Amino acid sequence: MSTNNIQLDENGKLRHFLSIEGLDQTILTEILDTAESFTSVADRTIKKVPILRGKTVANLFFEASTRTRSTFELAEQRLSADILSLNVDTSATSKGESLLDTLQNLEAMQIDMFVIRHQDSGSAHFFAQHVRPGVSVLNAGDGQHEHPTQAMLDMYTIRHYKKDFTGLRVAIVGDIMHSRVARSQIHALNLMNTAEIRVIAPRTLLPVGVESLGVSVYDDLEQGLTDVDVVIMLRLQKERMRGALLPSEKEYFRQYGLSQERLQRAKPDAIVMHPGPANRGVEIESSVMDGKQSVILQQVSFGISVRMAVMSMIVGRQSGGEA
Amino acid sequence: MSTNNIQLDENGKLRHFLSIEGLDQTILTEILDTAESFTSVADRTIKKVPILRGKTVANLFFEASTRTRSTFELAEQRLSADILSLNVDTSATSKGESLLDTLQNLEAMQIDMFVIRHQDSGSAHFFAQHVRPGVSVLNAGDGQHEHPTQAMLDMYTIRHYKKDFTGLRVAIVGDIMHSRVARSQIHALNLMNTAEIRVIAPRTLLPVGVESLGVSVYDDLEQGLTDVDVVIMLRLQKERMRGALLPSEKEYFRQYGLSQERLQRAKPDAIVMHPGPANRGVEIESSVMDGKQSVILQQVSFGISVRMAVMSMIVGRQSGGEA
Amino acid sequence: MSTNNIQLDENGKLRHFLSIEGLDQTILTEILDTAESFTSVADRTIKKVPILRGKTVANLFFEASTRTRSTFELAEQRLSADILSLNVDTSATSKGESLLDTLQNLEAMQIDMFVIRHQDSGSAHFFAQHVRPGVSVLNAGDGQHEHPTQAMLDMYTIRHYKKDFTGLRVAIVGDIMHSRVARSQIHALNLMNTAEIRVIAPRTLLPVGVESLGVSVYDDLEQGLTDVDVVIMLRLQKERMRGALLPSEKEYFRQYGLSQERLQRAKPDAIVMHPGPANRGVEIESSVMDGKQSVILQQVSFGISVRMAVMSMIVGRQSGGEA
Repeated sequence: MSTNNIQLDENGKLRHFLSIEGLDQTILTEILDTAESFTSVADRTIKKVPILRGKTVANLFFEASTRTRSTFELAEQRLSADILSLNVDTSATSKGESLLDTLQNLEAMQIDMFVIRHQDSGSAHFFAQHVRPGVSVLNAGDGQHEHPTQAMLDMYTIRHYKKDFTGLRVAIVGDIMHSRVARSQIHALNLMNTAEIRVIAPRTLLPVGVESLGVSVYDDLEQGLTDVDVVIMLRLQKERMRGALLPSEKEYFRQYGLSQERLQRAKPDAIVMHPGPANRGVEIESSVMDGKQSVILQQVSFGISVRMAVMSMIVGRQSGGEA
Repeated sequence: MSTNNIQLDENGKLRHFLSIEGLDQTILTEILDTAESFTSVADRTIKKVPILRGKTVANLFFEASTRTRSTFELAEQRLSADILSLNVDTSATSKGESLLDTLQNLEAMQIDMFVIRHQDSGSAHFFAQHVRPGVSVLNAGDGQHEHPTQAMLDMYTIRHYKKDFTGLRVAIVGDIMHSRVARSQIHALNLMNTAEIRVIAPRTLLPVGVESLGVSVYDDLEQGLTDVDVVIMLRLQKERMRGALLPSEKEYFRQYGLSQERLQRAKPDAIVMHPGPANRGVEIESSVMDGKQSVILQQVSFGISVRMAVMSMIVGRQSGGEA
Repeated sequence: MSTNNIQLDENGKLRHFLSIEGLDQTILTEILDTAESFTSVADRTIKKVPILRGKTVANLFFEASTRTRSTFELAEQRLSADILSLNVDTSATSKGESLLDTLQNLEAMQIDMFVIRHQDSGSAHFFAQHVRPGVSVLNAGDGQHEHPTQAMLDMYTIRHYKKDFTGLRVAIVGDIMHSRVARSQIHALNLMNTAEIRVIAPRTLLPVGVESLGVSVYDDLEQGLTDVDVVIMLRLQKERMRGALLPSEKEYFRQYGLSQERLQRAKPDAIVMHPGPANRGVEIESSVMDGKQSVILQQVSFGISVRMAVMSMIVGRQSGGEA
């Protein structure tokens, strides 16, 4: 766990938010509880609190993203932050600047918090290792490593509908191998003592030694879905097809697509989740996505609360620690 | 009119602003009057009012635009809104998301108001049909259908200089067939009981049955301009040339370009308008554009007031209906 | 100096900030002193003052830039301005609009201040000549002409570390001919009565008649560095190589690259500056850039204070002149 201690300050408070790995149940629960208070802010006429007023957040997206970036920007606005958003592919790096130079230059602009999405696993940790004492880093997805705010909004959604994790059976379906969402999710579910975590995928999309993560493995979708409380579908990256790991979209849907019929294997009140954007008709049938068990759009809403929560916990710590 | 009732709530107040068609003189006059109060805000040292504070407006531009997008963003800032601006061609839709999925995901982010520009006619209505009760949609131009805020800023400009519509003769010159500006404009002028509306264009750029819109048709520019109070020039889309609807820019200017000489056919105090960006030397001579009868830049200024007015009317309604 | 009087109003106060040429020591000192007060704002928990509240600043970047644009945007946010940022290459000009049309249309949007970067020398002056009385223009770099806020942040950095200019020996190393930074810098150093200004460059990168600017010229780096207090390295534009003005990056570094060894020719407490982004291993050795004499990142920080200072001086003048 020592490699991740970088996320906590000397009082055990959240300083960076880089990965679920390395955190504990107490911190995760604090994030969920704090997010709950922000969900009510979202329902108010004036959805704004002054928690980050006069602070500057830089959003560094080296990879394109609509959903994650938009929800981060909205979370920051609702916390009253000053915001600097950079699509870094079109900027300084094209002039040959290294990641560290980019970081240090931005840091010199008195940025208080970095939100970074980058195609390389470990890039958020790299940032966190190099920033100055007062500065924090949030991982908005790094390569195939982790996507911890996505995991926490999923946890929030599950807790919202199912109250407690300890009795739950959760299935994660799809490209486990390449998914930072799945990695973060499995860590979080384990930390919250989820009764059973199942991963369901073709063998070509499972990492070697996946069982060591504390999951049970299924390559048959219908078996895997039997009696689960929560189904988390992963987005199928179309480039996997080209890479010959998979036969075709049609064939994938036939074997691993979530249809209404297959969903009936799960418990009657099972919820269906997806980090988005979904490929309708590939990993999930349209009628399931729009069906009454789907909580996919609620995940998006909760994503704003969870991001507000993480940022406010970090800044609350910065401003004295008495909060 | 029933297809447009979607724009009004059960008390007849503006909920969406999608098209001039379907609205009445009372609403149009209310927009103009409200915009007048915002024009004075623009002249103040501090051009800001808290009407949209804590509300979130999403600007979805599926088509590029500088003028319309900038004036919307400024209007939103001056109303103190939180703003999410997306150039949607470079975002989620490229991952294969449908328009409805994009809408629903954004809506899940607690967006209060959508401003949408899209290449498909009817897209703003489509959005309005699918949003949740508390959410409003503004059409910033949909295909060849309508561009109602442009029409209202034109109406504002005309009223500002000419006081009353009922005695006016207004000429709209250019590509009527493909122009959403012209369509919205003709509806608005008719609703305000404008004495005479003329459209002046080559037959290839006139929609079939244009007379049924309540306009008189001219294919000769000099005849059409005779004794008018207002001249609205339309931008000539260069792609029409390629499409063989028109011979050449030079030939177009020779027949339908507004020169100083031709402008003398209009009343001496006639005003010249253009929605911008203008092609100098194609549909309008530079000296006319910069001349003393031109109110083209004033249109841009008034555009901010009109957009502030529409948004504030919509949100005023939302916050109780007593406004 | 008359061509530059446009920068001052009738009371001699700063109205536009276009070039160092045409300003005097009093104004430069006022900028440095004002910036000093903003440096303390940057250190506060809430880095925000209401000086530009309700004012609108438009950032027009016709050339890409991360550093300059980001620091301008942060400066504007910390002054509480409303901000309109346009990458103009992707917008109206592609529809064939002239620079003057772009200016006038934006001006019609009640912009209070323009920040403009443009590939053509003189473009900022052009803007300033055409804006309305209440509107101001800041030059964020125009062609090979001037980059005055960069010069002033360099001056700020020098004064911060060296207190006084009158005893200093300053060397500027690199592509003097094409550098707007160098031009502005030389003017500023002269205005502040710097004891000696040296330019060090191969002859192909020196403008004709450079001595008339009040500098001594060296084509040998080691000679030029001897006993200087300040070393300003310029970025080597890689396109110069292609243009055959220079042999190769390697050869350039061999002759004009700043190494630890060569830096020892300078005074022991000499500071090393660079406007960024630097080409490590081309004009400057990595170990120098990250070394204890380097103040390159401090320059970035001070850049925000300096930009806040210039904008606040301009707007202070606008709001009455009693400030």
